[in-house]
Amino acid sequence: MAFVNEHYLKLSAGYLFPEIARRVAAFAAERPDVAREIIRCGIGDVTEALPQCAVQAMHQATDELADRATFKGYGPGSGYDSVRGAIAQGDFRSRGLDVADDEIFLSDGSKGDCGSILEILGAGNRLAVTDPVYPVYVDANVMFGNAGAAMAGGGYEGITYLACHEANGFLADVPSDDATDASGARVPAPDVIYLCSPNNPTGTVMDRARLTAWVAYARKHRALLFWDAAYEAYNRDADAPRSVYEIPGARDCAIEFRSFSKSGGFTGVRCGYTVLPKSVMAYTRAGVAVALHPLWMRRWNTRSNGVSYAVQRAAESLYSAEGRAQVGALVDFYMENARILREGAMQLGWKTWGGENAPYVWCKTPAGYDSWQFFDRLLREARVVTTPGAGFGRCGEGYFRISAFNSRANVEEVVRRLGNLQRSEQLQALEPV
Amino acid sequence: MAFVNEHYLKLSAGYLFPEIARRVAAFAAERPDVAREIIRCGIGDVTEALPQCAVQAMHQATDELADRATFKGYGPGSGYDSVRGAIAQGDFRSRGLDVADDEIFLSDGSKGDCGSILEILGAGNRLAVTDPVYPVYVDANVMFGNAGAAMAGGGYEGITYLACHEANGFLADVPSDDATDASGARVPAPDVIYLCSPNNPTGTVMDRARLTAWVAYARKHRALLFWDAAYEAYNRDADAPRSVYEIPGARDCAIEFRSFSKSGGFTGVRCGYTVLPKSVMAYTRAGVAVALHPLWMRRWNTRSNGVSYAVQRAAESLYSAEGRAQVGALVDFYMENARILREGAMQLGWKTWGGENAPYVWCKTPAGYDSWQFFDRLLREARVVTTPGAGFGRCGEGYFRISAFNSRANVEEVVRRLGNLQRSEQLQALEPV
Repeated sequence: MAFVNEHYLKLSAGYLFPEIARRVAAFAAERPDVAREIIRCGIGDVTEALPQCAVQAMHQATDELADRATFKGYGPGSGYDSVRGAIAQGDFRSRGLDVADDEIFLSDGSKGDCGSILEILGAGNRLAVTDPVYPVYVDANVMFGNAGAAMAGGGYEGITYLACHEANGFLADVPSDDATDASGARVPAPDVIYLCSPNNPTGTVMDRARLTAWVAYARKHRALLFWDAAYEAYNRDADAPRSVYEIPGARDCAIEFRSFSKSGGFTGVRCGYTVLPKSVMAYTRAGVAVALHPLWMRRWNTRSNGVSYAVQRAAESLYSAEGRAQVGALVDFYMENARILREGAMQLGWKTWGGENAPYVWCKTPAGYDSWQFFDRLLREARVVTTPGAGFGRCGEGYFRISAFNSRANVEEVVRRLGNLQRSEQLQALEPV
Repeated sequence: MAFVNEHYLKLSAGYLFPEIARRVAAFAAERPDVAREIIRCGIGDVTEALPQCAVQAMHQATDELADRATFKGYGPGSGYDSVRGAIAQGDFRSRGLDVADDEIFLSDGSKGDCGSILEILGAGNRLAVTDPVYPVYVDANVMFGNAGAAMAGGGYEGITYLACHEANGFLADVPSDDATDASGARVPAPDVIYLCSPNNPTGTVMDRARLTAWVAYARKHRALLFWDAAYEAYNRDADAPRSVYEIPGARDCAIEFRSFSKSGGFTGVRCGYTVLPKSVMAYTRAGVAVALHPLWMRRWNTRSNGVSYAVQRAAESLYSAEGRAQVGALVDFYMENARILREGAMQLGWKTWGGENAPYVWCKTPAGYDSWQFFDRLLREARVVTTPGAGFGRCGEGYFRISAFNSRANVEEVVRRLGNLQRSEQLQALEPV
């Protein structure tokens, strides 16, 4: 009799974005007269054309495949050497960070890697995530058995939620070693900690001092830090590390996830990578240290034949001089959108975070509205799709996220509509907080 | 303290193909004068140009990405509806098989799927694989904890190896319910059974009666059949099912893996798919039946944003009228290679299997040679790379695999060189078996 993975049965209802899509579709069906006015600032999906360097690289790679003399079959499981080299040099060594070519592992996106990395870890690791959090970390861990039952108020038993709120600027505090739970029992130190900066969903960036404290905490507890830097290209804060390896000691405890989705506009092209330094260790039950790098390499060679050839060439092209310029222009474009959204929201008197080093603006809902209520109101009255903060965790309740990934015209229209909503007679409940 | 997945530590040394690559590189370094004469018929990697339909589809998709009006960002985790529909219609419904569009799940290749499917299954399933076998099934299961320690003579404890040998035509027999192991203990029925037809490595195809018996066995034991049909396009035997769903009852117990690697020449493009009918069940420890389809869908939506847009369009193009013709021509080309290799080997008096419905010819080594010895001799004397049968399992000892994926000129040269080797004075040990 074949046994099912019963951990899947713990998963609480649908992933956030399908629920948003459902509500938008229902509204569009109910109001076909305004359906085409809907502006989507919910899911963080890029909207602008792929950079020309990547377009050219994909065309050229396709032409290579069309000729038996230049045809490419199976590639290395973790990516072509030239691509890994361009990444290690371009994103790390050129910034003075010690990362070897063979510590770069290409994948079809960091969403996958954030979960797949759990394959080389054992059972019984205690997970810590921020609250609010990108839901994929949690769901993947539930699937791999690193969580208990779903709790009535949201979240899962056995996971340490690192509360992010206004008082800490929506940045995770290092846990106290004496932390206790509601029953007074000591909370065990987490073994695996996901941190995301620039943060999805709050748009905040972690400063150097705080990340230094996290690295020290991980080393002290022999825990692993999973540093999700998918939005690294948007970080303009000189005091906020762009890579975890800027922190001394991180090469012993940290794995970094990067993506080309938001830098090169690769959400449909699909490419990201993981940095796994050879010095990162995990432990057997008997306490023997085991380097994770060979396991991750074996994992890729056994489970994959690497990323599509044309996609790898497109990723590599982003590191050329023209590629850098094109990525810079694309990021600047979205960051100008973010500025317009952030300043627009602030002019309405709304309390905001993010939007300065990230393509997300995190806003407090007006008094009297919870996240989903205000989501519905924005959808129905302003025809603007946002993401309700509660979808990212309990601490996200009372907030919502606006994505800057859209056309300039749409972003400007969103600001206008939010202003109209704020000013409209029948919506006096929308007092500034 | 972060715990490592200790199952990885059970994995025996390197995957087969890296070992072959190592020996070839060592020979090339030792004999640079003949290095460029080496012909690679080892790894089953295609060599010919990508079909024109796929080339055009990739160019067109790239152009769509280059324009914001037609740009594609995140796609559905399990593939675009139009691609899933083309597959379900083209590969199944057009052949009278009942497979719905949403039972097709696109991936970046069936190598990944053969392992990823284990994510939705629980711990404690007993695995059965053929011997010889594609090593990925076994290694992936070891990684997921479905095996015991590596055994001295090869293989892992706790796995049922279905011996394939000359007496059963290298086709797996359904286990007897009374089977006992060496100690006389009853061997438990397997819960998960991988079958591959046309077979890698032996090139044999499973007949309808035998597969019908396997489906009956799986239903009786509530086991799952994993039907790897990566080489389906090469099957010309009217009595050998191309899909497991040709067998009544298979929709209750079978998951089928397909690949475009060998049909459309996608080994570098990367695309495959899994068929998971909604009626396939696995069971909780308490014996409650759970449909796997929603779990697999959730798995994809949480762990992936789908296959690269241009790759999906390339896969879809293979189902057009011109695409079918181009795939047919490509398969015919490799099958003519297989015929030349098979008949060449037979003319030397070598005992062969496969090569008629698969791009692999499976040969018995001459008397006095084990698999790796003969591999080395073919490499050193004929400069031909093959794959030693022992690399696929204990029952592969004494055999070797020749891949038909090569140019016509190379295939003809291989036959000439094998003949020269056979006839050469100093190699009289190479008596026909």
